[in-house]
Formats: sequence, C-alpha cells, structure tokens
Amino acid sequence: MVRAKPVLHSIPPMKDLTTENITENVNLLNSQCDDPRTRFLVERLVVHLHAFARETRLSSKEWQAGIDFLVAVGQISTDLRAEMILLSDTLGLSMLVDSIDHPRTSQFTEGTVLGPFHTHDAPVTDNGFVLHSDPDATRLFVLCSITDSKGSPIRDVKCDVWEGDSKGFYDIQNPNRMEPDGRAVLRSNEDGIFFFNAVVPVPYPIPDDGPVGKMLKALNRHPNRPGHVHFMFEKLGYDKLITALYPRGDPYETSDPVFGVKESLIVDLGEVDAVISQKYQVAIGTKLLQYNFVLPSEKEALDIRASKATEALDGLGVKAKIINGLPVPDLD
Amino acid sequence: MVRAKPVLHSIPPMKDLTTENITENVNLLNSQCDDPRTRFLVERLVVHLHAFARETRLSSKEWQAGIDFLVAVGQISTDLRAEMILLSDTLGLSMLVDSIDHPRTSQFTEGTVLGPFHTHDAPVTDNGFVLHSDPDATRLFVLCSITDSKGSPIRDVKCDVWEGDSKGFYDIQNPNRMEPDGRAVLRSNEDGIFFFNAVVPVPYPIPDDGPVGKMLKALNRHPNRPGHVHFMFEKLGYDKLITALYPRGDPYETSDPVFGVKESLIVDLGEVDAVISQKYQVAIGTKLLQYNFVLPSEKEALDIRASKATEALDGLGVKAKIINGLPVPDLD
Repeated sequence: MVRAKPVLHSIPPMKDLTTENITENVNLLNSQCDDPRTRFLVERLVVHLHAFARETRLSSKEWQAGIDFLVAVGQISTDLRAEMILLSDTLGLSMLVDSIDHPRTSQFTEGTVLGPFHTHDAPVTDNGFVLHSDPDATRLFVLCSITDSKGSPIRDVKCDVWEGDSKGFYDIQNPNRMEPDGRAVLRSNEDGIFFFNAVVPVPYPIPDDGPVGKMLKALNRHPNRPGHVHFMFEKLGYDKLITALYPRGDPYETSDPVFGVKESLIVDLGEVDAVISQKYQVAIGTKLLQYNFVLPSEKEALDIRASKATEALDGLGVKAKIINGLPVPDLD
Repeated sequence: MVRAKPVLHSIPPMKDLTTENITENVNLLNSQCDDPRTRFLVERLVVHLHAFARETRLSSKEWQAGIDFLVAVGQISTDLRAEMILLSDTLGLSMLVDSIDHPRTSQFTEGTVLGPFHTHDAPVTDNGFVLHSDPDATRLFVLCSITDSKGSPIRDVKCDVWEGDSKGFYDIQNPNRMEPDGRAVLRSNEDGIFFFNAVVPVPYPIPDDGPVGKMLKALNRHPNRPGHVHFMFEKLGYDKLITALYPRGDPYETSDPVFGVKESLIVDLGEVDAVISQKYQVAIGTKLLQYNFVLPSEKEALDIRASKATEALDGLGVKAKIINGLPVPDLD
C-alpha cells in the first residue's frame, strides 16, 4: 500500500487537553468550517454531547453500549424500516424539530410527527375515494376543510392522507404488499373541502422488534400509539403542514411513545346525518370526522420562525443573523 | 396479520405538548425505568438533545441529514471498521469519556483514545520481541517501566502494544492480512520493565473514505494523526490504562483529529548507548523510546472518580449517591 503525502493545514494549535478544556479545543478545530450554519450546529452539538458526558460521568463501558446501540439502529435500517427516525421519534426529538421548523401560533393548526409509514406511491384520486379494502373495519367518513388565517377557503391543496387498517397495520408492514392500501392523494375543492372514506383508526405498536423496541423495554415504556389518521398538506405559497388527528378517548392518548398527540389534534367523532348522507352518498350513522385545518402562508410561517430564532439566540447571549431562514451567530 | 391485545401501562398522563414542555414530558414517560443509573443517563441525554435542537432552531431538513448520516455510519460499520467509534473520536467524545472514566491526578500517567486498530489476536511474547516485519522502517527500541504511586515497580503487568508500519498502516488495514503484525502482548519483569523492538511511528490519516471522512472535509479538517505507539496495561488491583506516546515534533501534534495528544504523552526520542546496547542486544545509535508509566491502584482510581462524580452532580444542583461506581441523583 502506498499513501499520498498528507496535506498540512494551518490552524491555531490546541491547548493541552484536559477534561475541562477539550470542548473548547474540539470547537477550535471545527471552527475551520467555512459555512457559518454548519459551524454553529457542530459547535452546539459538541457542547451538549460533552456536557452530557461530563454531567453523568459517562463510563467507557456505557458509551461503548451507546455506540453498539447506534450501530445496530443503523444496520437494521432499510428503505422500508426507518429505525433511526423511530429512535428520534421515541426520544421526542422528531416532534420537537417539527415544532421548531413549523412553529404555529394558536390561530393555525399544529403539526405532528410524520412517522415511518408515509410512502410516495399513494394513488392520486378524486374526493370520495375509499381508502381501505379492509372488510373488518368500522367505516369512517372524513369531511374536512382548509382555510387561511383570515378564514378564507384554500382550494387545490395537495392532501396526502394515510392510516393503518382495522388491526392497526399499515400496508407497508404487509410483506406481501402488491399495491398501496390505506393511503391517497386528494385535492381540496373550490370550497377548500376534501373528503374520503376511511376506517376508524385503532391503536397499534410502533415496530418494536429492533433496537428501539429493546430501548423502550429497558425504559419500561409501552410501544402503543393511539389511533390516528395522518394528513400532509402542500400548496405553493403556504407552509407545508404534516399533522394527524386522534379520536378522543384512546387508552394511549396521554402516553404516546412518539409524543405526537396534542390537545388541539384530538377530535370527537360524530355520525353522518341525513344532509351529509345525501350530499356525499354515505350511509346515515357512519362515523364522521370533521375538522378545519388552518394553514399559514409561507410568509406568516417565516415570520414566526424568525422571531423564535432570534429569541433562542438571545437565550445563548449571542446576536443572531438569519441565513437562508436559519439563525447563526452574528460575529460582526 | 393478527396482533395481540396491547398491554396498558399506568403512568402519569403527559401535559399538552409544546416546544417548551416536550422535554419534561419525554422525561416523565422515561421516568418509568426501574434502573436509576439508566434513568439518569436518559434524562440528561434528552435534556441535551432537546436543548441542542432548541438553541439552534434545528430544521427538519437538517435533522433528516443528521439521521441519514448516522444510518450511513452504522451501515459501513463492521468488525474491522469501527466508524461509529471514529465519529465519537473525531467529536472528542471518546477522549472525554476516557478522561472521565479513568481520571488521573498529576502523579499518574494520563490515558488517551483506544482508536479503531486494537485487536485481540496479538501474539503473547517475551520481552525483546520484534513487532514489525516492515523492511523500510526506522527501527525504534522501546524500553519502559511501570511503577505505582509510591514509585515501586509493578511486575507482571499485561502490556498490550500496537502501532502502524513505516507507511502509517496498521496490519488490519491490509486486505491480505494473514496474521498480526505490529502488535504484541508482553509482561513487565520483576523490575517493572518491559521492552520490545518497534519502528519510529509516522503520521497517518484515520480512515477517511466513509461518512466520517466526509464530515471532516465539510469541517475543513485534515484526517492526519500524529505518529504514536499504543499501550494498554492491565493487572488485577490496578486501574486499566489505555494510552499512547507521541514522539515530539510531529506536524499534526496540535491538530490531532481524534484529540489524543496530551503534553504529558509527548516524548523526546533518544538513541541506544553502549550500556543499553549490550544489555538488550540492540545496535548502538538505534532510536530509543524510554518512559515510566505510573498506574493508580483500583482504589486510588475509584477515589478520584468518586470525588469528580460528586463534583459533577453538585454542578447540576442535585445530591449524588454512587451505585456500582457511577453517580445517580440521590432522591431520598
């Protein structure tokens, strides 16, 4: 084996390393990064990773177990098994990042976790579509509207919807899956309304036969998510909304393993009455989910995000500037 | 597919989730863990992960990149490629954890990173062993002693030693490796002395063709470690020491990508004189590495660790108790 002569960088020399100053030294080496946002992210990551180890007096054996765990999470991951996302979900990080990236004031519908079951092969369909072929399910008619902050309907929003079946399984958990089931892509009509035929969602466990399942067991946590229907809304000029609705009274409502339930997303199911029955050709008495989603414009979302970002960097005692919508310390 | 009825846990219900209170809610759910040390580790991990996201206003896109990165690190890992350890090394975390787990006061020899090149198949040999078959190398005679805190020699210490060759490659980087090369397991003699024939170590890059290499490039960091010889010492009753010695003057001495260099581990090489030449049968003028390693007893190490642990938990404003040598908050 032959090796090229290594290139020498000119950087400020580190100080003699100690348990106390190593963080400063690592950040000194990382300060060579040209991109201010990456530099900021890595600096804060190193500060928190090191503080975690220092505060807990993390042992080599414990950290080796942590490394083995992360490797196992990476190795079980495939296109259809998002174990690292599941880890992030079960630590509450996915929910937090979504809240940060899509902050909402009370007038707008809140977001929640995407989860590992969204796909990109859902059929593009008309309103009224029957989502499931599941014969055992309790039918649910979903009749929703989308408005802006002024209450005006938003037409032609791309509505991606998906849910599990009457046993709590998503189609991609079926090893013999031939085609999508329990998912669709609809468009809101000129009144901002979209509707489809779903099933009453039931609780189901997140995939718990891998490393994350082992972690939950070690933490004495159950893996069961309360039943819900997923929604994702996209339209040019509006901030993308990933959310879900949770029928009230689920036994796991207050202990969701991925922290996806918010009070504002819990719904009381109704029943289809004569008027709705006639208008939408759905049997009277069918379970009914009605909801009005309020989407912020891109500008409204950016404004909320920018004010939260400035607040966060103020909390660190540094002046912020915003680059590509994301905060970095203003060193000028 | 059929699914067993989920088991219901009785836990305190979470509050309505917000960006601010989600950390508290996650820790409420995790507080069900029976083991106090695990509970403490996970609580501090969640606090720091969440604070990192909150302070930086981490975006969904950035976190997805982070998840993809961690999956890639896991997937490239094998028994012979410890990419996750390398990630920990390059973030300074391995060095920090070692310093925490094996704290040293100034009278004792400091530790440093194990690195990814230690194996368990090194030949068990007598002192005087020739470590390398490398014909291009500059020979180095290593003549060291091991003492306790009172300066008394420690005999019969298991001394695991390993290093790269004259091109900076370790044997396990050779895809055609048939047997160990550049490594040995020796024992200190009745005078606490051990010696072997090595080569003058040269700088070499850490494996940088994977995700960690990409990270270093993004951070504008070089991958080159200053040359060094690894040592690991074990004897019942003494705290295990993993360390390395670095010949002075290496161009990467102050910018080691894994933060392994400490001032106390930098050595000036000498030359074999007539006395040493005759005693150990080594040519006069051969480069010479001499060092005295000072090992703490298990008790001395435990005492230092316990006092540091108490100090750390005091810093968190919580009273500590020590369980199995590791601190947990004392809730009584």
